[in-house]
Amino acid sequence: MASNEAPDIVVGRLPIYLRALTLMAEEGREITSSQELSEKLGISSAQIRKDLSHFGEFGKQGTGYEIVYLRDQIKRILRLERTWPVALVGYGDLGHALANYGGFAPKGFEIIAVFDDDPKKIGQKVAGKEVVNLNELPRTLEEKNIRVAIVAVPSASAQQVADMLVKAGVKAILNYAPINISVPHYVRVQYIDPVAHLQHMTYYLES
Amino acid sequence: MASNEAPDIVVGRLPIYLRALTLMAEEGREITSSQELSEKLGISSAQIRKDLSHFGEFGKQGTGYEIVYLRDQIKRILRLERTWPVALVGYGDLGHALANYGGFAPKGFEIIAVFDDDPKKIGQKVAGKEVVNLNELPRTLEEKNIRVAIVAVPSASAQQVADMLVKAGVKAILNYAPINISVPHYVRVQYIDPVAHLQHMTYYLES
Repeated sequence: MASNEAPDIVVGRLPIYLRALTLMAEEGREITSSQELSEKLGISSAQIRKDLSHFGEFGKQGTGYEIVYLRDQIKRILRLERTWPVALVGYGDLGHALANYGGFAPKGFEIIAVFDDDPKKIGQKVAGKEVVNLNELPRTLEEKNIRVAIVAVPSASAQQVADMLVKAGVKAILNYAPINISVPHYVRVQYIDPVAHLQHMTYYLES
Repeated sequence: MASNEAPDIVVGRLPIYLRALTLMAEEGREITSSQELSEKLGISSAQIRKDLSHFGEFGKQGTGYEIVYLRDQIKRILRLERTWPVALVGYGDLGHALANYGGFAPKGFEIIAVFDDDPKKIGQKVAGKEVVNLNELPRTLEEKNIRVAIVAVPSASAQQVADMLVKAGVKAILNYAPINISVPHYVRVQYIDPVAHLQHMTYYLES
């Protein structure tokens, strides 16, 4: 469990720091600073230092952060020293793109089961997996001890799928359907809605 | 331009309110309350009232919010009384899913140009559009006065594409490549990275 009470908004920035640090490490870099991270990420250096201070002492005044060490600490904090098996529900265009996406595995996640309720899609092969009938979801999730799921179904089905997932023991749902879903307090939900991001930006545009 | 100084984080919640209000209006509902919105969205009712108060007086103590009125006001605030033409760069699996996605048009956005630099993809048809050679991007964007773009290219190309877009007059970029891009201060960028959302949630999971 979390060792302290870092605000959720701070936790949400850790993956951004991790992404930047991982890239720097891949480039063979050894030391960075809150100033450099600030310039790369558009987050103030004071904010970065304050965010990280919730989780420990990672840098020294004047010498900065050791990139690989800080990267590994953030991975540990985010529980990414293991790979999390993930269920994907919905095999439309988006589900297809997600199932084929090569960016999950290197970052701690592997989609190991894909579900749909469309007989035309069931049995299709994608990235070494087979699309399975949605009604097998409870058994598969229990067998494979899957607690993380991605929902890529139409809005009209999202709540029903979320209910199935919660009942099957899922504790974290990434929801692509543009609708808010209700889950018990012990289940985490994050949303991805490109429209919301676009609308956020048009606020600042001149018509 | 923005008529006041609402914090960006508040602006970012307006699309979430708009989504909920739009759904309620479609259901024929007339009145809602910050309490009901709170339950649906998992944002405290005090926060919702405070957020909305940045933009005007939309509700009356004891009677709540008129759904259609508040929806239309938020649309106005977010500059969604018009449809924004959007350029999509990158026609891989994700680009294909985005180009086919029916959720943009009803919410104020229309992908009217799709670009890729792969000769095998150029000329393909998708949702009534043709995939166009990336080197035609500057001319197309100018001709069609496009100021909003979605980047769905691999990380290695994202900065170069962003530079092209900025040079062509784009002021808002939704970036799906899992890498931070540098743009001038007058250009807005939002990121969509499913890995970051998943990592945010695993923080709270027991291993």
